Amino acid sequence: MDISIIVPIGGIVALLFATYLFFTVKKQSSGNEKMKELSGAIREGAMAFLKSEYKVLVIFVAVVASLLGMASFFEDSNIHWGSSVAFIIGAIFSAVAGNIGMLMATMANARTAEGTKKSIGKGLSIAFSSGAVMGMCVVGLGVLGVFSLYILFHNLLSLTPALTTNILFGFGFGASSIALFARVGGGIYTKSADVGADLVGKVEAGIPEDDPRNPAVIADQVGDNVGDVAGMGADLFESYVDSIIATMALAAVAGGFAVTTYGDKAIILPLVIAGMGIFASIIGTLVVTMGKGKNIYGILRNSLFISTAITAVFAGAATWYILDGEMSPFFAMIAGLVAGIVIGLSTEYYTSEKRKPAQSIADASKTGPATVIIQGMTTGMLSTVIPIIAVVIAMLVAHHFADFYGVAISAVGMLSILGVSLATDCYGPVADNAQGISEMAGMGTEVRERTEQLDAIGNTTAAMGKGFAIGSAAITSLALIFVYMIAANELLIPAGKTLELSLGNPKVISGVFIGAMLPFVFTALTMGAVGRAAYAMVEEVRYQFKKFDLLNNDKNKPDYARCVKISTSRALKEMIFPSLLAIVSPVIIGLILGPEGLGGLLVGSIATGFLLAVYLANAGGAWDNAKKYVESGNLGGKGSDAHKATIIGDTVGDPCKDTSGPSLNILIKLMSIVSLVFLPLIIAFSG
Amino acid sequence: MDISIIVPIGGIVALLFATYLFFTVKKQSSGNEKMKELSGAIREGAMAFLKSEYKVLVIFVAVVASLLGMASFFEDSNIHWGSSVAFIIGAIFSAVAGNIGMLMATMANARTAEGTKKSIGKGLSIAFSSGAVMGMCVVGLGVLGVFSLYILFHNLLSLTPALTTNILFGFGFGASSIALFARVGGGIYTKSADVGADLVGKVEAGIPEDDPRNPAVIADQVGDNVGDVAGMGADLFESYVDSIIATMALAAVAGGFAVTTYGDKAIILPLVIAGMGIFASIIGTLVVTMGKGKNIYGILRNSLFISTAITAVFAGAATWYILDGEMSPFFAMIAGLVAGIVIGLSTEYYTSEKRKPAQSIADASKTGPATVIIQGMTTGMLSTVIPIIAVVIAMLVAHHFADFYGVAISAVGMLSILGVSLATDCYGPVADNAQGISEMAGMGTEVRERTEQLDAIGNTTAAMGKGFAIGSAAITSLALIFVYMIAANELLIPAGKTLELSLGNPKVISGVFIGAMLPFVFTALTMGAVGRAAYAMVEEVRYQFKKFDLLNNDKNKPDYARCVKISTSRALKEMIFPSLLAIVSPVIIGLILGPEGLGGLLVGSIATGFLLAVYLANAGGAWDNAKKYVESGNLGGKGSDAHKATIIGDTVGDPCKDTSGPSLNILIKLMSIVSLVFLPLIIAFSG
Repeated sequence: MDISIIVPIGGIVALLFATYLFFTVKKQSSGNEKMKELSGAIREGAMAFLKSEYKVLVIFVAVVASLLGMASFFEDSNIHWGSSVAFIIGAIFSAVAGNIGMLMATMANARTAEGTKKSIGKGLSIAFSSGAVMGMCVVGLGVLGVFSLYILFHNLLSLTPALTTNILFGFGFGASSIALFARVGGGIYTKSADVGADLVGKVEAGIPEDDPRNPAVIADQVGDNVGDVAGMGADLFESYVDSIIATMALAAVAGGFAVTTYGDKAIILPLVIAGMGIFASIIGTLVVTMGKGKNIYGILRNSLFISTAITAVFAGAATWYILDGEMSPFFAMIAGLVAGIVIGLSTEYYTSEKRKPAQSIADASKTGPATVIIQGMTTGMLSTVIPIIAVVIAMLVAHHFADFYGVAISAVGMLSILGVSLATDCYGPVADNAQGISEMAGMGTEVRERTEQLDAIGNTTAAMGKGFAIGSAAITSLALIFVYMIAANELLIPAGKTLELSLGNPKVISGVFIGAMLPFVFTALTMGAVGRAAYAMVEEVRYQFKKFDLLNNDKNKPDYARCVKISTSRALKEMIFPSLLAIVSPVIIGLILGPEGLGGLLVGSIATGFLLAVYLANAGGAWDNAKKYVESGNLGGKGSDAHKATIIGDTVGDPCKDTSGPSLNILIKLMSIVSLVFLPLIIAFSG
Repeated sequence: MDISIIVPIGGIVALLFATYLFFTVKKQSSGNEKMKELSGAIREGAMAFLKSEYKVLVIFVAVVASLLGMASFFEDSNIHWGSSVAFIIGAIFSAVAGNIGMLMATMANARTAEGTKKSIGKGLSIAFSSGAVMGMCVVGLGVLGVFSLYILFHNLLSLTPALTTNILFGFGFGASSIALFARVGGGIYTKSADVGADLVGKVEAGIPEDDPRNPAVIADQVGDNVGDVAGMGADLFESYVDSIIATMALAAVAGGFAVTTYGDKAIILPLVIAGMGIFASIIGTLVVTMGKGKNIYGILRNSLFISTAITAVFAGAATWYILDGEMSPFFAMIAGLVAGIVIGLSTEYYTSEKRKPAQSIADASKTGPATVIIQGMTTGMLSTVIPIIAVVIAMLVAHHFADFYGVAISAVGMLSILGVSLATDCYGPVADNAQGISEMAGMGTEVRERTEQLDAIGNTTAAMGKGFAIGSAAITSLALIFVYMIAANELLIPAGKTLELSLGNPKVISGVFIGAMLPFVFTALTMGAVGRAAYAMVEEVRYQFKKFDLLNNDKNKPDYARCVKISTSRALKEMIFPSLLAIVSPVIIGLILGPEGLGGLLVGSIATGFLLAVYLANAGGAWDNAKKYVESGNLGGKGSDAHKATIIGDTVGDPCKDTSGPSLNILIKLMSIVSLVFLPLIIAFSG
């Protein structure tokens, strides 16, 4: 029996475990009528958004799949028809995982609030289980998708490993496309609703957050789900499969380092490690859902550490067994795991309200909002140091042990516990929603305090999750670049050429410059989109306040659905241009500056994309928590001038941390994948 | 007679012309006693700051010169004793140019205000002449310094051209060091005073800008001089000499492209073009000082265009004559000139209050300060596109015509009209000071309106000047990188190695990542420094308001000198750490990651340094002018909520555009120069 059987078993077990968790959560009480009504409205809005989004995506997927399919008819194109098939499957799998995860999250919010009535541990268990449904769907569908396509094309259709992994990039491209629209569209949705609700509600009318009189309050809750659940899930689904595929591709290079050093089995190793990671993640999940005790943050962190330790042991054993005692790729993998943890902890330090950086921002409120902004920018920029150094060291160590293959497998290592770490991320928005529902349904002070506590920890874990998502995106993209270089050479060498990616070549430097610029432009576009969409929401909320006299007349109800509709239509409209930019730029630059310029572009875009993503996420998180720090009674507390100043900081940070920053993860991965998929065409043209 | 005689003649003529302008300005009336007193206080404060700054610099220069001198005793170090001498001279020349320029500027402020009484043209003529003194000193001392060192070491001491240009980098390093401290220290000074004065004066007490009751008002005026005059002058002195030296060095490479294609004379060509540019600049200056007419902005722009056209003709003729009809380097140079103009115009578009970007920021004030900040960030990020594309195209075109030599000479082209373009930059702060003095001395509405007009145009030209400074820094740094690559190979080849700067080398990518991070860190440090220094100023102003009861009791006078002292001591203290980071990082990374990693670092730091510099400068400029747009009566005008929101934007923008952004110009050039100077050591160690 081949050890690779662990892969489909892991995948199936993950899906079964997800099913089990789904029904465990579902059978919990979702509270009284009011809570059911609210939860239902949120679910409806979220599903309506996904449905509209998928309508756009179906068209996009159909067009790209047809183009790939047509290109495969031309022998010169070097594109196999399988890419088109893999692309469609990748898109579908990502969409399914996102859909189930979000359905679960929107079912869990009221149930978490109701569970919290009993105990905070009960609430945690429900919220976390719902997050784990997303986590398990992502890893299950991820490994099953990659594994079955590999079996299909390599074992059944007898294609070479190299060609098979080439086809697999189609799967990654499909996942990327869904991730792009989910992150960008979801990000615009969530922040236009949030900023719109806050600007009129909190700032102008002076009513609290989540006040049911605010017409945008449901749209805001929906946004947490479509942005932070569906968007995050699709983002990490992409990283997860990309890192596995990149490692497989590097192992499949005929005459390459991995195959000559470790033999053919190096191809299957990343899948086996991913499969092992699923079991470790299940154990980690059980630690939380069965955990007793009041220290929620401690439980969550322990679960991550336990899963990490188990994965490390499992992966070490698997490497030893598969590669006949050769352990170098395992050391490379450990480098990735450590880097992931370091980045997560650094993110926590820079954003937590218990630490100096966020407190220094709060402190700057003494001299007004301008210094709050400046201090936040400073904090965000400084926070790039540790993640960059961690990634650089991980890359150098991984490369030292196992060449490019090592870099790729270090990304696999980082992502191997995704099943549980994604649960930790997705728990955040569920807790946030539960808090909103407990507020709106008037569940009393005790419950509200407990959900607030759950929510606060959710913010910290969400920040760590963001750091982790960014770090894994960076290492995955680096792995993809190395695949790009090798793939380009394989296409060029038959024509008697090689890819010269020297910085002494002005085309390469031009590529680096333009690539470095793209994340700035992309950030500007997504941020501008939030601004425009939020403005539409502001107008609507102002209009409804006036029309229904909501602030003075308790009997009138706001029209939540109109706000949900505005967010949906605006987000869909605004996501198109930035998304197309991300897909089209590498192709155009590749055609103009050739494969050399495109290689430079990828490196430049990863460097600044990573930096800006960390900067935006951490500045945004720190602004948010600086406000929370003031709200918890420091510097004059709620309603003080300091509070007003930090609210301005938080509003600036919102699109930074929840739209533009996370979208950059997708940008850097997607551009690498697009470059890989279209490389044969680019070389044919620039030839 | 050799044509190179034009170089010393040009240099001497520039200094004579500067002397003439100096005395022309000096003999103007500096108005009544009050004006003299104010101008004297500003001059005193500015000179006191320079004096203190130079005390720090003397130590720094002595230490570095000694280190270089000692290193030259070790044969292995490959460092010639001349580097140490050149370093000292470079530092002295830069300091002298800055000193004279600032002395002139601080003498011209009251004279400009007084001149404006007669006519706005008279005011313009005085302010511009004073700026031209700085411009002429910079270009005069620049060409004389480089030329005489070249004659000394090459013609008199018979060193090879390659070794001589190597020594010349010491001159560049000396200029860089002064520029670093002038930009960083001056930048921190000016903005801590400005932000400090505004936060308490405008925001808290509600008194107008430049109100004499504000104790920080003189420090604020001093800041304009030490930051925008001395800092800008030192910055461009560095770019100017670096671009010339880089071009000479590329021409001096034995067996290199330039010498084999154009012969030995290619070495002297950049100096001759610079010499020609001096005469063109003098003509451009006369266009302004003798110009009649009311359209001041038109006059300034015409003078730049005329100088550009004349330089192009002169340079074309010189190239044709020196290179015997070979015109390719001339085309490369034109690419640089065009890129400079394009970047300047793009900056004007993105920052002018008459254009959409700044107005859209003002418009965002309808929904409060947060959206003003977001819109400004968006604008700044989008504004990176044109400058990046312009630099990339200029580099590719220049490289196409004349290889790396072409890239270097395109920077020379951009900077050849520095004599007049620097006058346009330095005119801004003088006009700003004149406006302040007219306000404080109560010179009446008519004069104030005129000086306001001068000041407004000064803001636009200053913004253009900043764009130009950034663009020239980027191209100059690129030229230095190419020199670095060639120099490294020359050192490595004898040992049987070559410099492999391939992006397939993880060390190179690591370098790119770390290099890309440094501008973020540097920005955070300089911004944080402004924050801390401004806070000290805020405390002082609040203290004085209270102690002397300044707002209610007209008889009491504030203690301006204390504020000047605070700015001085804080700026000097805060400038040390960022400056050392800039100097030490390339050496440390070079020692750890070798010359490959260092090459990557330089490319990464130029890419993000350039991007961030453009982003910060344009966002800051646009915020400033959005406020001005509201102040001129739009969206409710002065005192409205919109105005308050845009004041917050302006305060955030202040350190962006006047401290962090401009300091990045120095960072990218300095790191290249440091790498070049210490390259032999790095190669010896990483051997």
